[in-house]
Amino acid sequence: MSTPAPDPDTRFWSPALRGLSAYTPGEQPQGTGWIKLNTNECPYPPSPLALRRMAEAVDERLRLYPDPSALALRQTIAAQHGLRVEQVFVGNGSDEVLAHAFMGLLRHGRPVLVPDVSYSFYPVYCALYGVACQPVPLDADFRVRVADYLQPNGGIVLPNPNAPTGIALPLDEIRWLLQHNPDSVLVVDEAYVDFGAQSAVSLIDEFPQLLVVQTLSKSRALAGLRVGFALGHADLIRALSTVKDSFNSYPLDRVALAGAQAALEDQAHFASLTRRIVDSREWLARELQALGFHCLPSSANFLLARHPRHGAARLQQDLRERRILVRHFSQPRIAEHLRITIGSPAECEALVAALRELIDPVRHRDSKVTPA
Amino acid sequence: MSTPAPDPDTRFWSPALRGLSAYTPGEQPQGTGWIKLNTNECPYPPSPLALRRMAEAVDERLRLYPDPSALALRQTIAAQHGLRVEQVFVGNGSDEVLAHAFMGLLRHGRPVLVPDVSYSFYPVYCALYGVACQPVPLDADFRVRVADYLQPNGGIVLPNPNAPTGIALPLDEIRWLLQHNPDSVLVVDEAYVDFGAQSAVSLIDEFPQLLVVQTLSKSRALAGLRVGFALGHADLIRALSTVKDSFNSYPLDRVALAGAQAALEDQAHFASLTRRIVDSREWLARELQALGFHCLPSSANFLLARHPRHGAARLQQDLRERRILVRHFSQPRIAEHLRITIGSPAECEALVAALRELIDPVRHRDSKVTPA
Repeated sequence: MSTPAPDPDTRFWSPALRGLSAYTPGEQPQGTGWIKLNTNECPYPPSPLALRRMAEAVDERLRLYPDPSALALRQTIAAQHGLRVEQVFVGNGSDEVLAHAFMGLLRHGRPVLVPDVSYSFYPVYCALYGVACQPVPLDADFRVRVADYLQPNGGIVLPNPNAPTGIALPLDEIRWLLQHNPDSVLVVDEAYVDFGAQSAVSLIDEFPQLLVVQTLSKSRALAGLRVGFALGHADLIRALSTVKDSFNSYPLDRVALAGAQAALEDQAHFASLTRRIVDSREWLARELQALGFHCLPSSANFLLARHPRHGAARLQQDLRERRILVRHFSQPRIAEHLRITIGSPAECEALVAALRELIDPVRHRDSKVTPA
Repeated sequence: MSTPAPDPDTRFWSPALRGLSAYTPGEQPQGTGWIKLNTNECPYPPSPLALRRMAEAVDERLRLYPDPSALALRQTIAAQHGLRVEQVFVGNGSDEVLAHAFMGLLRHGRPVLVPDVSYSFYPVYCALYGVACQPVPLDADFRVRVADYLQPNGGIVLPNPNAPTGIALPLDEIRWLLQHNPDSVLVVDEAYVDFGAQSAVSLIDEFPQLLVVQTLSKSRALAGLRVGFALGHADLIRALSTVKDSFNSYPLDRVALAGAQAALEDQAHFASLTRRIVDSREWLARELQALGFHCLPSSANFLLARHPRHGAARLQQDLRERRILVRHFSQPRIAEHLRITIGSPAECEALVAALRELIDPVRHRDSKVTPA
């Protein structure tokens, strides 16, 4: 009765599915009392205007399908970015938007280039859609070198800032890459752009192969609502719409449409959120450095930090015992790093206090520390 | 300036995308004053309990990701159907669930069999995922003959009741088909099952190749919330989960999770909704027959009806001018039919009154009627 679950019988599975290793999202504990610094959520509540509009959308109109074209939301996004509505695509979180981009724009029989240390969902999309994925190493400082992407490819995906490094790529380098790679799509995943990087949206009218993807999960504090969008030339957007209309006509429900639009309209709340998070990030980076951590220079709402004398897996476990969750990736190059979401000031202080205890050599002489 | 939009430049599109003809959902007019009998929505509001729980979910917790496993909702569904939670998959509307089933269970290099007159999204999924689609003709009475599906296939998809015919398939015939087609998946799409057909859920423990798909859009009056689910052997569900976790970790937002669970719990509201719709369906069928329409025997929340002397396209247009929307499919075999959603009693009466005017030969002697 207590034997482990057997391997699934996959005889009815599509054969292409059998080798897939799905993406593993960060832990979402169901209880309370956790300090959650593991999934890059915002520590502050979403816009009050968005909450009010969502509450108003919870009524008998839910018996009716939503607008399949999400026109009102797309108009709001277009107006904010100085684009036409035909240049805007919306989806059920930027993960769905990215999936449709892989399906609709990146399957060309040539490998898709992604940084070797990056959002680990990209290789999963490639596997799902049968596209080769070619990791391109970051340099020794964990930076993207755009010249390394000048190789035969069926598309390039660059998060900016990169995750989990947090390092931003200057706009000039993106422009240079677009100039030198004119024949395949460049997807710039700007999930974290609002915390300090330069958006590539200003380049859209210049480069028909540029697709910019953003999300409301981070800087709009709406991870629980599942809304993301893509901006680009109308012909790229039409590809995404063709995929969407061949997959699910109505990916955004009525409450999500109402909430997303209001959240985007509430610029004051957005500005306040992002400013507070950037302030906390700078404070936390200084405190971590004071404890001996090496932090990569982050333009995101998280820090990637390594301690020369303390193993990351052990630190994560020790923090978890103190009900503080941070993320640890056991992949090469970053296995000795922790990715720490920027929380509220109180959460950041609690983290620093816990780490101070953990890395104090007197109190923790029995710890299995990694030699420097 | 007023020239039509040019064909899109598809040079950046994945080549497989270029031939796709996407699904066209029914019209969703943005203004008010329409009698909407075109997309099989429920004329009654959703469960008050569901609305209350959704309103309660609209709060600052939306900053946090939803539970990626949707465990609480899946537990509720499992308990209602006498299944284990491992036998339940949930998605962003049954359209997404079906898409994942095509991707994960129906790509075997052999054609997928679907009725020739059926939900027109099935061939679109096949095209999206590069699977051949083999339409199997309904018989002269628009019925599924299960023996016709005993041919080489990579899977079979049968809606029950079928749409847009509304005709139900008896459980014994589904069982017979499962017994005689043991080596590929049978997807039974039960979007409309609650209006009078027998669910195949009772066969799940007997047949590991059976996947049953249901939705909250119709009988739970929540088309605007986008929640559907699949029930089947745990190994089939695991295939769907693998696709989902390679596509979008969190397809259901927090409000949708809360609302769906409450809607399923509110059995009294559900029973009242479906009973009233069945009553209206029987009334409307009699009235249409009195006007000379031929109606197929429906077990769904719509009727497929044909008038021997009045063309369907013209009737649809004439109804539209009276702000009554019904659906017309210009595909073979049903091009002379209208699919009419069962509305409230007042909506059904308004439709009958409008049709009475339209098909009165004295008042409409100039109509371009189709000869009997």
